[in-house]
Order: sequence, then structure tokens, then C-alpha cells
Amino acid sequence: MAPTTRPDDGERVLTALRRHLDGRREVVAGIDDRVDRLAGLLSDFVTDGGKRMRPRFALAGWTAATPDGAAVPDEVVTACAALELIQACALVHDDIVDASDTRRGRPTVHRTAEALHRDSRWDGDAERYGISQAILIGDLALTWADEMFVTSGVSPGALSRALVPWYAMKTEVLSGQMLDVLAEASGATDEVTPARVNRFKTAAYTVERPLHIGAELAGAGPETIAALREFGVAVGQAFQLRDDMLGVFGDPEVTGKPSGDDLREGKRTLLLARATTLSAKDDADFLLGVLGTEIDATRLDRARRILVDSGAVASIEAEIDTLTTRALHAVDTAAITDHGRENLRDLAAAATRRQA
Amino acid sequence: MAPTTRPDDGERVLTALRRHLDGRREVVAGIDDRVDRLAGLLSDFVTDGGKRMRPRFALAGWTAATPDGAAVPDEVVTACAALELIQACALVHDDIVDASDTRRGRPTVHRTAEALHRDSRWDGDAERYGISQAILIGDLALTWADEMFVTSGVSPGALSRALVPWYAMKTEVLSGQMLDVLAEASGATDEVTPARVNRFKTAAYTVERPLHIGAELAGAGPETIAALREFGVAVGQAFQLRDDMLGVFGDPEVTGKPSGDDLREGKRTLLLARATTLSAKDDADFLLGVLGTEIDATRLDRARRILVDSGAVASIEAEIDTLTTRALHAVDTAAITDHGRENLRDLAAAATRRQA
Repeated sequence: MAPTTRPDDGERVLTALRRHLDGRREVVAGIDDRVDRLAGLLSDFVTDGGKRMRPRFALAGWTAATPDGAAVPDEVVTACAALELIQACALVHDDIVDASDTRRGRPTVHRTAEALHRDSRWDGDAERYGISQAILIGDLALTWADEMFVTSGVSPGALSRALVPWYAMKTEVLSGQMLDVLAEASGATDEVTPARVNRFKTAAYTVERPLHIGAELAGAGPETIAALREFGVAVGQAFQLRDDMLGVFGDPEVTGKPSGDDLREGKRTLLLARATTLSAKDDADFLLGVLGTEIDATRLDRARRILVDSGAVASIEAEIDTLTTRALHAVDTAAITDHGRENLRDLAAAATRRQA
Repeated sequence: MAPTTRPDDGERVLTALRRHLDGRREVVAGIDDRVDRLAGLLSDFVTDGGKRMRPRFALAGWTAATPDGAAVPDEVVTACAALELIQACALVHDDIVDASDTRRGRPTVHRTAEALHRDSRWDGDAERYGISQAILIGDLALTWADEMFVTSGVSPGALSRALVPWYAMKTEVLSGQMLDVLAEASGATDEVTPARVNRFKTAAYTVERPLHIGAELAGAGPETIAALREFGVAVGQAFQLRDDMLGVFGDPEVTGKPSGDDLREGKRTLLLARATTLSAKDDADFLLGVLGTEIDATRLDRARRILVDSGAVASIEAEIDTLTTRALHAVDTAAITDHGRENLRDLAAAATRRQA
């Protein structure tokens, strides 16, 4: 059997990103060298890391709708790789919103720009400077994402079909982010809000729409697209539930984030909402009380015990299983190619069983 | 003679914006009502005001390349109107960068979101909340701008030609903004930096590229486009120089901004750079000293006198005249239609002789 994911796909995505970023930076360098150095922060951010989840799902969508053995054309790789630039904008702006100092074990873009200000001993507020430049760098990523997607070289027909989920996805992820920020501020304790954030900020953006985009690029029919989207919503939701678990129980050595980071950041996850519903009042109050504070090891330990003892952890794990089963069932159809299905199974496992 | 600017163009631009925003908000409302209320801040911002400079120049570009008497098709109005959504992103994000409290006589978007947080008596830092939502609202504007432009309904050929200046413009304006933020922080006193900010943040973005986009939508030939771009660069630069003058000498009643606002905000304008070059050392030091401070009436008065007595004001006024003459000369060619040229003359006058 042929390998379900070509080992060089990741390399091809990176090459496409490098090519586009280098081309754009030539334009910027023609404007001003100092601006090009700032644009370099975006290049470094995009090319230095990340799991490339969205391009992988987009390529999987293409593969699932394409006869076995067909090589992915360069222009499709380029269009799928453009998703990483949307993700760059999302992360750079999210890190400002969350006031995060590190990302992937390095200083965040706004902190790096802030450090450049300090090192240059410039006038004014270094922190404000870092945030200002990072807002603009994120905007540049969003602009270059659209340019990369639209000028990828895919056929006009494929492009106009794929632009429908492309634009829908962007509205969905931003709506999900806005709701997330609002939920954190308003202290929402219901399950509807985190489930909705999960649905749009994560599931639509990370899995459903990338698969949909890839399938439209391949000229897939409505049955294939429906199957892929159903798979995508379920896997995407399971992916976020796994993220919620890792955000409290993850190993800092593996996740690259401090232990119990979600509690410290005050994230209103479904895991948390369920635990507050299931546990006794004093335990629920304790959980809500530590949220968004500099939680120490003892209190983190108690919070974790409440999450487990309330049954919330078991309930979320069961939900991950149910969603994964539903996802695999959705693609168990003749509308999905055999090697496409194998590929989707691997990705579902990677998204829901990961440690980081 | 037919009227050079149809009186209903502004109304048509507004109608196109309303239609697109209403359509997008239906999608958002389907996600969450609370997010739709935040998206409403963007709608209000876009539909409640602004000079619509960029759509006007884009429509002028279309007119200059189209035989006399042709009505502008709806899809061209829609594509040109999309420029207002880029401008919405630019202003919403700029107001965060500049920490501005008001825009067009109303609270800025980040301040409005901040007030909603306070009024709801939510947890956490209201100011941070306002900035976070305004970053995302600006991103939404940028996303919807691209969607509106690409789905405007113009022919695929016209669209693919017009997307070249569309994307170039976005990279240029962001580069200009980044350089502007950098120049302010680094305290650049040279003339090259503000001239470059002017060239890309204003001239390319406000005049040259909108004209270019309109001309490409009309299927203009290379001579027409070259003439329009030369006109656009000159008028755009003159527009910014007029802005620099109004930023120090403008009547707050007319501009809607506090008196001497550019000095208070620490803007590194060409007017300022020229005055520091032309004036004696103690005057130059005084100017640089008041920059970015809460300047009082006496000190503002002295700063204004230095700008006049140094000859900087006269020199900038002469430059505005030279640029305007050059602009009008550039379109004095058979490659521009007669009514298109009249239209451009009116717009050049409006951009360079305005009081606000």
C-alpha cells in the first residue's frame, strides 16, 4: 500500500511559504530596510515551527476527493500552505490579546518587537511599541495569506469554489475569537458558550474548512464535501477537547507551555464548565476562584483533583471518543477515496490522541 | 456638459457597503448574537462617516479610462466601495496604536468596546478588553474587504488585473504604517523617513492604487494607468502635506481633532523635519522637545511661530503647489478621457485645498 501521507508534503508546504514570504519581503525591502527587518519577524515565525495542521487537513481534503496515486500539484500545495499565514495572524494577534510572553518556546512577536525597542534605547513605551508593530505584522500575515491563496495558480473555477469556504472560515474564526474574549471577560459559566467557541474558533477553522477548501480545490462533489465537513466538525471539536485537557494536565516538557496554563490564563473551556456543573459548590467556587490567577502548585493540584473527581475529565474523554467515532463513521462512504480515508484516520488519531 | 462626478456615487458606495455588511452580519448573528453586536461596531463605524476618498479615487480611475457618459456598473461600485473596509481596519488598528480616544467626533472602536465592558461590570481589565476586541474587529474588516472586492461580480479578467494593485496597496500601506510607528519611536529627524511614510502610507494607499484599481477594472491600457499613477503619487503626497499642515494649524471646529494634535501625538511629519532643519538650534530643540507631550496653548503658539518663521510652512505650501501642478500635467494626455480629467482636477483640488 502506498504511504497515506507523502513524507515530503510538510517540506513542500514550507517551500511554498518560503517562496511567497521571500517574494513579499523583496517588495517590502524596496520600501524600507527597517520595515523588512520587522517583516522578518513574520517570516521567522512562520518558517520556524508549528504543526501545520491546517495545510495538512486541506491537503487531506484534496486527497480524499482525488483518485488514488495522484501527486498533489504545486499550486494546490501553495493554496493549502496559505492557511499557515492566516494562522500566523491569528497567533500573533492572540498573543497580544492573551498577553503571552512565549510561543513555541520563544518570545512572542510583540515581545520581540518590544525587545528591539529596548535594545535600541528608543523613546516612549517599549511595550506599546511591541504591541503596535505586532498588530501590523498580523495584518500583513492576513493580507499575504489572501494574496498567496488567490495567486496560487489553481484554476479560476477551483479558486472561485474554494474561496467560499475560505471566506466563511475567516469570518468563523474571528467570530469564535471574539466570543472567546467576551466569554472570558463576562465570566460565562454555561456550556453553550465554550461549545460555540470550540465549534467556530477551532473545529471550523482547524479542520472542517481546511478539508472543505481542499475538497473544493479538487472539484469534489456535494457528497464528498458533506462527509468531509461532518468528519471535520467532529474531529475539530475533539481536537479542542484534547487541547482543554492538555491545558490543565499537559506535561510542560512536551507542550512547551507552563503547567496548568489554561487556568492561569482564565480560559473558559468546556472542561471547566462541565466541572463547575458537576462538582459541589465549594469545589466549583474554588475552580472559578483560581481562574485567571497566578496559581501555585498546591492549588493547581487541588484544581486538577476537582476536575477528575467531579467526573468532568471522564466525561470529556468519553466525548472525545464519541466524536472520533462519529468522524470515522462520516467518512466511511464511497464518496471518499480509500487512501483518503486512511489518511483521515491517521490525522484524526494525531489530533485527538496527541500529547502537545 | 454632464456632471463630472455623479451626485449619487457616494450613495451607491454606501448602499454597497450596507449590503455587504448586512450579509456578513447575518452569518455572524447565526454564530452568536453577542458577537453580532460587536460586529455592529464595525458596521456603525463604516456607515456613519468618512470622506470615502479611496472609493472616490477608484471610481475616478474607472471613469478616466471609460468613454464619456457610461454609467458605472453596480459591480464596479461594489469593488471600489470595498476599499472603505480596508480603511476601517487601518483606522481601527491605528487608533489602538495611537491610543486615540475619539475618531470623527465619537469614541474610537476600542474605547467603545472598553465602555461596554465597564457598563457590564465584567471581570478583568476593561482597557485590555477594548483593545482585544478592536484588534479582532479590524481583522474582520480586512477579511470582509477582500471578500467584498473578490465577490463584487466584476468579470474574472478585470478582477485578476485589479487584484495586482489591490494586494500591492495592502503591502504598501502596512509597510508605511510600520515605518511610521518605527520613525516615531526611533525619533528619526531626517526628511527621507517621513517622505517615505507619506509615499506608501498615504500616497499609494489613498490615491495612486485606488486610481490604479479603478483603471484596471475598466480594462485601461498601460498609458492610461501610467498617467493615473503619476497623478496619484503627486496628489497623494500633496494630500499628506496638507494633512501635516492641518495637524498643526487646523481649526479644531472643522477638523474634529484637538488643536495641534500632530505635535501632541509626536508625529514625525515632513513639515516638522523641514522646520528642524531650517531653524536655529534652540528652536529646533524646542520643537523636538514638545513632540509627544501635552502641549499647552503658549507652547503650541511658539511651535507654530517656529514652523512659520523658519520658512518650513512656505516651503511645504510651495511643495503642495508643485505636486498639484505635476499631477495635473500628468493627466493632460489623450490617454485620459475629457470628463475623467475634469473629475480628477476636482478631486485634486478637494484633496489639497481642504480644511479638514
